[in-house]
Amino acid sequence: MSTQELGVVRRNITRADAAAVQKLSRFGVATVHEAMGRLGLMNPTIRPIYTGAHLCGTAVTVLLQPGDNWMMHVAAEQIQPGDVVVAACTADSTDGFFGDLLATSFRARGCKGLVIDGGVRDIKDLTAMDFPVFSRAIHAKGTIKATLGSVNVPVVCAGAMVNPGDVVIADLDGVVVVPAALAQQVADAAEAREANEVAKRARLAAGVLGLDMYGMREPLAKAGLRYID
Amino acid sequence: MSTQELGVVRRNITRADAAAVQKLSRFGVATVHEAMGRLGLMNPTIRPIYTGAHLCGTAVTVLLQPGDNWMMHVAAEQIQPGDVVVAACTADSTDGFFGDLLATSFRARGCKGLVIDGGVRDIKDLTAMDFPVFSRAIHAKGTIKATLGSVNVPVVCAGAMVNPGDVVIADLDGVVVVPAALAQQVADAAEAREANEVAKRARLAAGVLGLDMYGMREPLAKAGLRYID
Amino acid sequence: MSTQELGVVRRNITRADAAAVQKLSRFGVATVHEAMGRLGLMNPTIRPIYTGAHLCGTAVTVLLQPGDNWMMHVAAEQIQPGDVVVAACTADSTDGFFGDLLATSFRARGCKGLVIDGGVRDIKDLTAMDFPVFSRAIHAKGTIKATLGSVNVPVVCAGAMVNPGDVVIADLDGVVVVPAALAQQVADAAEAREANEVAKRARLAAGVLGLDMYGMREPLAKAGLRYID
Amino acid sequence: MSTQELGVVRRNITRADAAAVQKLSRFGVATVHEAMGRLGLMNPTIRPIYTGAHLCGTAVTVLLQPGDNWMMHVAAEQIQPGDVVVAACTADSTDGFFGDLLATSFRARGCKGLVIDGGVRDIKDLTAMDFPVFSRAIHAKGTIKATLGSVNVPVVCAGAMVNPGDVVIADLDGVVVVPAALAQQVADAAEAREANEVAKRARLAAGVLGLDMYGMREPLAKAGLRYID
Amino acid sequence: MSTQELGVVRRNITRADAAAVQKLSRFGVATVHEAMGRLGLMNPTIRPIYTGAHLCGTAVTVLLQPGDNWMMHVAAEQIQPGDVVVAACTADSTDGFFGDLLATSFRARGCKGLVIDGGVRDIKDLTAMDFPVFSRAIHAKGTIKATLGSVNVPVVCAGAMVNPGDVVIADLDGVVVVPAALAQQVADAAEAREANEVAKRARLAAGVLGLDMYGMREPLAKAGLRYID
Amino acid sequence: MSTQELGVVRRNITRADAAAVQKLSRFGVATVHEAMGRLGLMNPTIRPIYTGAHLCGTAVTVLLQPGDNWMMHVAAEQIQPGDVVVAACTADSTDGFFGDLLATSFRARGCKGLVIDGGVRDIKDLTAMDFPVFSRAIHAKGTIKATLGSVNVPVVCAGAMVNPGDVVIADLDGVVVVPAALAQQVADAAEAREANEVAKRARLAAGVLGLDMYGMREPLAKAGLRYID
Repeated sequence: MSTQELGVVRRNITRADAAAVQKLSRFGVATVHEAMGRLGLMNPTIRPIYTGAHLCGTAVTVLLQPGDNWMMHVAAEQIQPGDVVVAACTADSTDGFFGDLLATSFRARGCKGLVIDGGVRDIKDLTAMDFPVFSRAIHAKGTIKATLGSVNVPVVCAGAMVNPGDVVIADLDGVVVVPAALAQQVADAAEAREANEVAKRARLAAGVLGLDMYGMREPLAKAGLRYID
Repeated sequence: MSTQELGVVRRNITRADAAAVQKLSRFGVATVHEAMGRLGLMNPTIRPIYTGAHLCGTAVTVLLQPGDNWMMHVAAEQIQPGDVVVAACTADSTDGFFGDLLATSFRARGCKGLVIDGGVRDIKDLTAMDFPVFSRAIHAKGTIKATLGSVNVPVVCAGAMVNPGDVVIADLDGVVVVPAALAQQVADAAEAREANEVAKRARLAAGVLGLDMYGMREPLAKAGLRYID
Repeated sequence: MSTQELGVVRRNITRADAAAVQKLSRFGVATVHEAMGRLGLMNPTIRPIYTGAHLCGTAVTVLLQPGDNWMMHVAAEQIQPGDVVVAACTADSTDGFFGDLLATSFRARGCKGLVIDGGVRDIKDLTAMDFPVFSRAIHAKGTIKATLGSVNVPVVCAGAMVNPGDVVIADLDGVVVVPAALAQQVADAAEAREANEVAKRARLAAGVLGLDMYGMREPLAKAGLRYID
Repeated sequence: MSTQELGVVRRNITRADAAAVQKLSRFGVATVHEAMGRLGLMNPTIRPIYTGAHLCGTAVTVLLQPGDNWMMHVAAEQIQPGDVVVAACTADSTDGFFGDLLATSFRARGCKGLVIDGGVRDIKDLTAMDFPVFSRAIHAKGTIKATLGSVNVPVVCAGAMVNPGDVVIADLDGVVVVPAALAQQVADAAEAREANEVAKRARLAAGVLGLDMYGMREPLAKAGLRYID
Repeated sequence: MSTQELGVVRRNITRADAAAVQKLSRFGVATVHEAMGRLGLMNPTIRPIYTGAHLCGTAVTVLLQPGDNWMMHVAAEQIQPGDVVVAACTADSTDGFFGDLLATSFRARGCKGLVIDGGVRDIKDLTAMDFPVFSRAIHAKGTIKATLGSVNVPVVCAGAMVNPGDVVIADLDGVVVVPAALAQQVADAAEAREANEVAKRARLAAGVLGLDMYGMREPLAKAGLRYID
Repeated sequence: MSTQELGVVRRNITRADAAAVQKLSRFGVATVHEAMGRLGLMNPTIRPIYTGAHLCGTAVTVLLQPGDNWMMHVAAEQIQPGDVVVAACTADSTDGFFGDLLATSFRARGCKGLVIDGGVRDIKDLTAMDFPVFSRAIHAKGTIKATLGSVNVPVVCAGAMVNPGDVVIADLDGVVVVPAALAQQVADAAEAREANEVAKRARLAAGVLGLDMYGMREPLAKAGLRYID
């Protein structure tokens, strides 16, 4: 069943094909988003906590309660090498759900990083560890461990639907989610798109205008664009 | 006529005097804003996409439609060496109107950078190119090419009026717009202000208080300030 | 009396014990906040103006009026070596109340940095000086010197109560305020907490799960957590 | 397949059971949300456009492009009596996607109202029509008809997952989404909860404290609450 | 000269033609905005302070300083019957620049209302007076009278350029600005547009779909829309 | 001791003098704020949940944890007739901490209303009860009862310091807090101010300009204001 539920941990999830994930990791978020037909982006409130942060992996999802990070510890056990933890919250919260201790634990399990629609802390340590985190806020505010959420249920994180096992890619441009079943197809489309851009970039660098390269002059005129001297 | 209009490209614009622009490029945004009598700033939602970004040039203005970057390609053709593209939008939009391909094209035309009241993407590439961009958002969201806006009409960008040919200066402190006709006068005032600050800085560093250096003790007492032990 | 008042400068304030401040300076904001029982944080709108910024010192408080930085000059005279200036405003304002000249003056008095619920400018110079500033905004907008505020009265800065003489600690994770009377006690608790974390970190790095290390399995089961295959 | 897609209209959707929808319509959003185990709410950015607005019906979903309301016209044809249109957008947009003409058309099809993560206009007319709309913004900004979105695909609207056919309930407290398969079960739980509240309300009105009625004194003491005189 | 300036009051301004203003007052903001080719709107942060507020008149512009309403008194003298005051600020400010005393004074001069990119207060009294105000905030915060701004210079108010004498129309849908020179032309276009909508509304109410009435089926198919059963 | 603390309920608090509270209840928030020398306001994010809401009473303060309303029940027992509950939260939260059941209980204790830097729900019922609530958000999101906060400790609510027993006044213009010890003095100043405004209002209504009534022409000229024809 594809509905959110509380108090549940799903242990067996279907992760996207490893080779497709590997191939997707070669492309940036903007390219992958275009390759998906311009879908799958989280909204731009999610930002990297340090400049070089980037990640690509399969989602272990967490549904948190506001001000409570109990489920992060439950999620740790479900992490397999190559996973990315994606944490949503049942209500808006910028509390610091995650810090260097949890990062140490997640890394010990092979975790590739964290995307969280909430706050994180210990930024200096996380940066030193080069543990990539994409979050909505940085806040030292501590959390409690009192209420059940869930692990590996479908979540909405920063406006994007994420199912356990989906591919999550994050870099300076934002975060994109590729449904597990589409991973290979999107990776191929991304590759084609990127190849196509190399030639375009060279022509533009040589001074060719997009107006000519893309054949825009006629449609612009047809749409009524007027040039005035 | 000085009114916004859609579907128009003005080809001949009066750029600010090149020597004045050159002189203005020596000063920071805060200094230029003060030299203009504390006017001309964009609001602080516009930020550089990387730490070292700064620019000074004459404005080629673009009026975009939300989610549509067609006019950026039209603008490219109007760029002359030393220009800065200033892009506004007819409605709030954080979509990624601009990326490394357009930057490549703009640079090939001699463009000094971009100021946009919207989103941009390909941050890693733009940083590697050292192509200065000041934007309201970073977002991988792609745009379409379907609706006419305008090029080189007056625009409101992040709360500031910008006319084609105005001088635009941007650094870590924000973005300021100097009307073309005032460029020389503001440059001179900025120079005078900066000269004045050198001496002040030395005295303050030596421990002289602003209270004494600026003669504030009397007006403060007159305004009623009370000291309590 | 502990009430805010305008037009007043308190000259004699009771600063937190120097040794306690020194000890607190060894700990991060998240640790100190936890050591205080999860109280004392400013809200996360206050951010460092450059990446490495951090500070720890005793508060000289300033109550500003919107768009007016007169009281910053009055505050300069009240600064003693080791102080941090904490500036609040009687209304929301992102104007640039502070720049490199004031920083030069503050530093000449031994100031350790600034925390301000408002805007600052001259970011490039402040970064070059390595003068730590934590602010709500960066904005080149200049201010006037026309209306009285106060110095060394209790203020609310970014949601936190700050009394003159309190300890203020700021780093990448945010800003925390320790009441002067609690400084030694909080410093001791922070030390204990940090010692405790070293061992935890090692165990987590070795692959021990928080579920086991913190004994969470039983309370989770009791709360009704269900595992599904 | 449960993935978002562009350029698609699903004609046959499974609407929640009519009797269950009817029963759910008797309860407020807060009650239904509690009856679902505190899940299913949209975030509080979605507000009614006039005070008395409320609605309950089955979702016809629309995925819009920013600044483009073409799909609203496509959606009109899919509306059956008792439906509520739920419109999401591929990017943040406050443009006025909907006004009195579309409301006239939707009503002619039996539509119960609109929930939209975007802007609407013609507020005076919509209020006069008593056509309930819950939106993120009110904005006169017109939209175009140029780019394909989808109708009756799964969407994320204001942080909530909505599948075609789900029950959507909205009143002054916000908007809640009940998955079609859970409609009867949630309606029953809501009924039980509301019955339970009648007795509680009477006791509280008579001066009984929640501390006693809910038996909180012991757990509070156990948690360490101290009373000071 | 069309540039903003401080410390200036322009006494003679060219107001839009009275008959055109009168005609424009018959139309709503959404209609006028469409009649202008979808330009001229302020952003949706400006809202009426009470439900029935609406206004139409010629602009007397005011440029305020943050936290200072001195220029509102200067503006009062420049008001002629039929004018609307449009107040912008040199920096973001939500202070209460305007209340019932100023409203009383403005009304005595024949003022039709106020549009302000800032805060107002005395909402209860303003509502009782039925003095229409459209503002960005409601805030009791008082202001000072210490710094010069200007009256009847071009201003940017909530993202829209406003020149003295322009027509300003505001209702529940927002605020639109019609350049004085375009007033008659826009009024005529609005009239045509509204006439056109009457017939459309009747057909839609009768159950005709927009898909058919606007001939959208073919372009949708051409764009690739697919129907799935 | 005047410091925030968790897990504490202070039973004996010193409420402001009843006669002074009674007198203050005659004045609006803007007047009282001016009478205090323009201090004491909460920020404008706090709004009434229905149009006619207003309140005046002595504060019982509550410090909540995010997503947890346990302390509201503890506070109920501390309410005496004439009290207003002022609820702050240790972290930003828009959850619905309060609804009609708690309002029923509070009213049974003689409570005059609620001011909360968080969310509330059951708006329809609260409006029907005419129970005045001023909140930061409306949200149906339910809360838990798991973590201790405090009752009757000093709190920061929406930027204002509130001590138990202080006078809290709220109306359409916002919320102001008068320290208990200043209640009589502020009430007297408010009375004087209001008397003063009656005469002013009459003169302004008769067409006298503020420029003349307040003697502003000379200081404006001295400040350099220039009139241009």
